Amino acid sequence: MNNSTNLSQAVALDQTDPLAHFRGRFDLPPHVIYLDGNSLGPLPKATPERVQQLMHQEWGTQLIKAWTACDWIDMPQRVGGKIAKLIGAEADEVVCADSTSINVYKTLSAALALNPSRRVILSTPDNFPTDLYIAQGLTQQLGQPYTLKMVEADALLEHLNDEVAVMTLTHVNYKTGRLYDMAALTQRAHEHGVLVMWDLAHSAGAVPVHLNAAQADFAVGCGYKYLNGGPGAPAFVYVAKRWQHGARQPLSGWLGDARPFAFDSTYQPAPGIGRFIVGTAPLLSMVALECSLDMWMEVDLAEMRAKSLALSDLFVEQVEAKCAGHGLQLATPRERELRGSQVSFHHPEGYAIMQALIAHNIIGDFRAPDILRFGFAPLYVTYADVWQAAETLARILNERLWDVPAYKAVKKVT
Amino acid sequence: MNNSTNLSQAVALDQTDPLAHFRGRFDLPPHVIYLDGNSLGPLPKATPERVQQLMHQEWGTQLIKAWTACDWIDMPQRVGGKIAKLIGAEADEVVCADSTSINVYKTLSAALALNPSRRVILSTPDNFPTDLYIAQGLTQQLGQPYTLKMVEADALLEHLNDEVAVMTLTHVNYKTGRLYDMAALTQRAHEHGVLVMWDLAHSAGAVPVHLNAAQADFAVGCGYKYLNGGPGAPAFVYVAKRWQHGARQPLSGWLGDARPFAFDSTYQPAPGIGRFIVGTAPLLSMVALECSLDMWMEVDLAEMRAKSLALSDLFVEQVEAKCAGHGLQLATPRERELRGSQVSFHHPEGYAIMQALIAHNIIGDFRAPDILRFGFAPLYVTYADVWQAAETLARILNERLWDVPAYKAVKKVT
Repeated sequence: MNNSTNLSQAVALDQTDPLAHFRGRFDLPPHVIYLDGNSLGPLPKATPERVQQLMHQEWGTQLIKAWTACDWIDMPQRVGGKIAKLIGAEADEVVCADSTSINVYKTLSAALALNPSRRVILSTPDNFPTDLYIAQGLTQQLGQPYTLKMVEADALLEHLNDEVAVMTLTHVNYKTGRLYDMAALTQRAHEHGVLVMWDLAHSAGAVPVHLNAAQADFAVGCGYKYLNGGPGAPAFVYVAKRWQHGARQPLSGWLGDARPFAFDSTYQPAPGIGRFIVGTAPLLSMVALECSLDMWMEVDLAEMRAKSLALSDLFVEQVEAKCAGHGLQLATPRERELRGSQVSFHHPEGYAIMQALIAHNIIGDFRAPDILRFGFAPLYVTYADVWQAAETLARILNERLWDVPAYKAVKKVT
Repeated sequence: MNNSTNLSQAVALDQTDPLAHFRGRFDLPPHVIYLDGNSLGPLPKATPERVQQLMHQEWGTQLIKAWTACDWIDMPQRVGGKIAKLIGAEADEVVCADSTSINVYKTLSAALALNPSRRVILSTPDNFPTDLYIAQGLTQQLGQPYTLKMVEADALLEHLNDEVAVMTLTHVNYKTGRLYDMAALTQRAHEHGVLVMWDLAHSAGAVPVHLNAAQADFAVGCGYKYLNGGPGAPAFVYVAKRWQHGARQPLSGWLGDARPFAFDSTYQPAPGIGRFIVGTAPLLSMVALECSLDMWMEVDLAEMRAKSLALSDLFVEQVEAKCAGHGLQLATPRERELRGSQVSFHHPEGYAIMQALIAHNIIGDFRAPDILRFGFAPLYVTYADVWQAAETLARILNERLWDVPAYKAVKKVT
């Protein structure tokens, strides 16, 4: 592949793509090139029928009996077990539950309790805000001397010391797409007695993840981005088996109790990962996620990664060739091993340019202050899509189609 | 109504029931008498289409744009505003979010922080376990001298003192259906400087609730019982307006931030009730709840209460008349003002009797150690249902139909 890749070459790549058949399993609107699956994955075609089945055949017909007759009660563990296969974990190390934010709270709380002589949570200022906000909420709640220390990524190693209880990082940065070396950073942290909690929001279904091989301690992640679980799909939480017996988290709800249906007045944590469940799961949303995961179980993760990188490479090549001189600056590392499954560019008029792209049916998103963000989900994005997206971006820049008042009014974006 | 109520009299009551027309709006299986809506409400007929619409027309078609184009971003507040009308609160005092357990954690944390010289959470040992478990998780996390003190309901008043930060009670007891006098207890607590957090899991959609009139401080409740939001529907949280500005809760997720889309690294709580939102809501489950709430907006709550009490009275009368001598003991107060919308009986063979009832298509549930529990949801339970349920219970007891090994094996029940 080189700067001269043309549309027919891109189409040819699609024709030999081993993952090409997955695209037909998504309900994508016609004429739209969707490069925002890192924010909200599209609708798998199988999902509506599965959700209807849960409503009509299970809820409507079985009513309360569905909890056992339809295995509702095991759904958090069952869905967690499927996610485990995508992130290098054992089935009994993951549950599907609550939101990513709440799972950050559970895991950071558990990590602090497991490392009681230390009071610092270490992270970076460019971590996703909710991870930082939750760490702030937790340390403020516990009071001095608990603190959240934020240092730039390249200073993390020098701040690993015996005051740090847990380091928490997002594996793939939500703005730049930069990928951390999970195994190396986890090892360095462990050398200092520091536990590590990885946020996999932009990793699960985007890059191969090997939590156990990296000896990760805790992880959380999102169901509605690359996993295509639907808006607000429940999140997941991973706890390495070696910590499960000792791990306590303060959101000790009844479904995390060892015997919830005994209705005792004193909490006894369930054995294993079950104690990271809190209350009753939102099953319509969780079954939609499970339906998408059943498709994910067919995906070869090495093929996923290869295509993700090839799509990203093609986009960088095409944009830099076609948009030169318009002030776009690549925010994503060029090195393949430092990249997740997205490509971002800085541009001072990034907001307006993204609005113009969206008006031309190229859907990416904008992140303040100046990031244009493009996600390349290998299950449904084609090489031709990527070629066309770069072509349209070039036209918008060349013809200044972004320079209209309606696009420049900054609004809140998701 | 007297002991001699016969089936045709019950049918006549249904014919003049002003709420009778709501029954047709539920998808109830034929031949089933469903008295377990206090555990999982049935499927409203309108719900599947609304959920399909969210999947196909919103998620599938609008993709990421649906967050603004379809008002997804406001859904927690909008749905909370509808729940507010059922519980005597203002629209901006309630949000729909997370699970009841997690909302217990938020509100108890906020209450402790608002009453910082006091360290005791006061409750009763018969409160729903998750309320107690969460209070235990929170007090253990905060460490000594924070404690959960549990005293029997009739000893609550004498334990209100200047060590108690917050008293938390479930308004309608999940086992017995006993209803607390919210206004009186809240007033007595306030006289001692004690805040009050009410769990409305068995109240919302079951009895009229007047949070503001009672000057309640905090409340939480459930979307999947009487509100018919579907399995695991998101819960709700109420914070009285006078506390909102000062209230802080440690689950400080990004969607509770004042400017979530600024992506700052320091949390600033949203003004008002918004700070009790944490992460992204499970929208398939939340829209199902909203669909049911739209039906609830048509319900006259005085008519709801009148029918609920009449159904309960009829059941007690019929059971006591027809099942005398079989060892059933009423667990629910006889006084109307002390009752929610359920009737419970103790029986040493309660589990087996409930299994036999279910086999005869009368669906109630069992709560350890010996409670048979029957919920009377006025929107779809008829007087004829109640009459028939008592008749079937009498037959099961008279003919000892419960006395078979399969029914006596104690299994977990939901």
